[in-house]
Amino acid sequence: MIKAALVERGRGFVTEVVKETEAEEGPAHVLDRIASIVRMVADEVPDRLISGVGIGAPGAINWERTSVIYPPNLPGWGIVDLRTALRERLENQIPIFVENDANLAALGSAHYGVGRPYSAFIMITLGTGVGGAIIYNNKIFRGTTGGAGEIGHMTIDFEGPVDRYGIAGAIEAYLGQRFLSRYARYKLLTRHDSSVHQKASADLVDLTPLMLYEAALEGDEASLEIMAWAGHKLGVVLGSAINLLDIRKVIVGGGLSAAGDMIFSSARKTVRDYVMPDLRDDVEIIRETIGNEAGMLGAAHLVFEYLDEHAASIG
Amino acid sequence: MIKAALVERGRGFVTEVVKETEAEEGPAHVLDRIASIVRMVADEVPDRLISGVGIGAPGAINWERTSVIYPPNLPGWGIVDLRTALRERLENQIPIFVENDANLAALGSAHYGVGRPYSAFIMITLGTGVGGAIIYNNKIFRGTTGGAGEIGHMTIDFEGPVDRYGIAGAIEAYLGQRFLSRYARYKLLTRHDSSVHQKASADLVDLTPLMLYEAALEGDEASLEIMAWAGHKLGVVLGSAINLLDIRKVIVGGGLSAAGDMIFSSARKTVRDYVMPDLRDDVEIIRETIGNEAGMLGAAHLVFEYLDEHAASIG
Repeated sequence: MIKAALVERGRGFVTEVVKETEAEEGPAHVLDRIASIVRMVADEVPDRLISGVGIGAPGAINWERTSVIYPPNLPGWGIVDLRTALRERLENQIPIFVENDANLAALGSAHYGVGRPYSAFIMITLGTGVGGAIIYNNKIFRGTTGGAGEIGHMTIDFEGPVDRYGIAGAIEAYLGQRFLSRYARYKLLTRHDSSVHQKASADLVDLTPLMLYEAALEGDEASLEIMAWAGHKLGVVLGSAINLLDIRKVIVGGGLSAAGDMIFSSARKTVRDYVMPDLRDDVEIIRETIGNEAGMLGAAHLVFEYLDEHAASIG
Repeated sequence: MIKAALVERGRGFVTEVVKETEAEEGPAHVLDRIASIVRMVADEVPDRLISGVGIGAPGAINWERTSVIYPPNLPGWGIVDLRTALRERLENQIPIFVENDANLAALGSAHYGVGRPYSAFIMITLGTGVGGAIIYNNKIFRGTTGGAGEIGHMTIDFEGPVDRYGIAGAIEAYLGQRFLSRYARYKLLTRHDSSVHQKASADLVDLTPLMLYEAALEGDEASLEIMAWAGHKLGVVLGSAINLLDIRKVIVGGGLSAAGDMIFSSARKTVRDYVMPDLRDDVEIIRETIGNEAGMLGAAHLVFEYLDEHAASIG
């Protein structure tokens, strides 16, 4: 899916449009679709006077924020300069920036979400995969090439289960949707008392984290135990990240974050065991509630940030 | 021990002085000794015209770089404002900065050591403990309160052995001197073929990493295996750190780094298994060779950095 939104400064969302990606038709077709969705959104504005386009994409982005690099959900793309491709199609020289989606969700949280009070925080997104980002001095901390923040692939057990990149004990191999579902399935197959058996098909083949969450809400002990297990793993990796960064505010987004304290209370307890004493005070784990909007607001903010810096350099 | 050096810009070390700390005499006495060692060093300069004092200390330092906070090797100190205490004793308003010793070693490496070619790197110091620091944009990355870089307390196994802060699986619990010695002792007690038995006392009670290193140099298989084991652990934690920071140059200092490729070749092999594919290129693990001087050169550089920024703001 391609999602686009018109964001007005100080007002937030104005219009949102969603289109099928039709990735199977190849890069040129998808780029045409991106250009057309930008035009649709721009039609909402008198004379189409939009001040820029911010684009979120999964995977690696180049340092200049122009190109996607082998985007994982668009097989066969290689390195594609989205900025140039879009400018050609839009016949317009407005600022266009591409950034990793997890980084944009964090930037959205920093300026429009629960991250607003903090100039620095770690963001972790618990979804299909486990994404991450670092906000430092109110900006995305980008590392050397723009790829920083991959907390999902940090290991908490060098002989643990492997994630989709083959990294043993990566936190994604515990908390990523498929991994958590599989773990829960094996834990619950023999727990006939669990109400998850009423929600999933025989042998729990279609068990999802949402079923766990719903069962846990109803007080299902086994599901609550699994949520606490997940929170424990989250606490471990956050401890490591806090030791390295001395950034003690953690914002958690993504589907699984809806489980809130079912996960967070064990994460909060565990994190203290993995953070060195000097850094233990003021550690906070907070849930982001603006959800999917965070990424789009973050994309818009990237343009506003550029305009502000540009204005400052003129002034 | 209190160590002081006169460092001249562009020339490096001029004079180095060492004094006993006499910590048992209390803070005021130690502060007097620090002031006297600064005066001794300053005596080398015409009219004592030194441009500033940089001080390295273990443990936490406040954001303003004036004070040590419960320094671990000076029990009973609490929070001590070294800047004010020294200024009173020196009757002088020159710039004085306090910084964590691992951070200063990294800064020294960045400007005088093997770190010179890189604007960003991760430093890890394998000594009694395992210290760490992050250099980003040629400066110390300080986090929120000045405590960033504690790679030694990142976990690689949430159920692993505990370090001196009780953190399970912290890399220090594998590579810190006492921990590595203990591991090696138990591994070698039943390896009667190991030449370490000729170097250590009965039951290997006094085994040190230096003995392991010497035995390994002579081709002792068991010692080489332990070095490779240590390198494997190092590679795991570096993988996690690289995923989070996208900083792919790693500089290793401290006593154990003398073992060089005995440790590094397994670290280099392992790190690739723990770094996500997008970040695997250009990972390098390099040994720092300037040794203990790095910290003192880093302390001096902190003063030079301040003077440069101060000059720039006047100019």
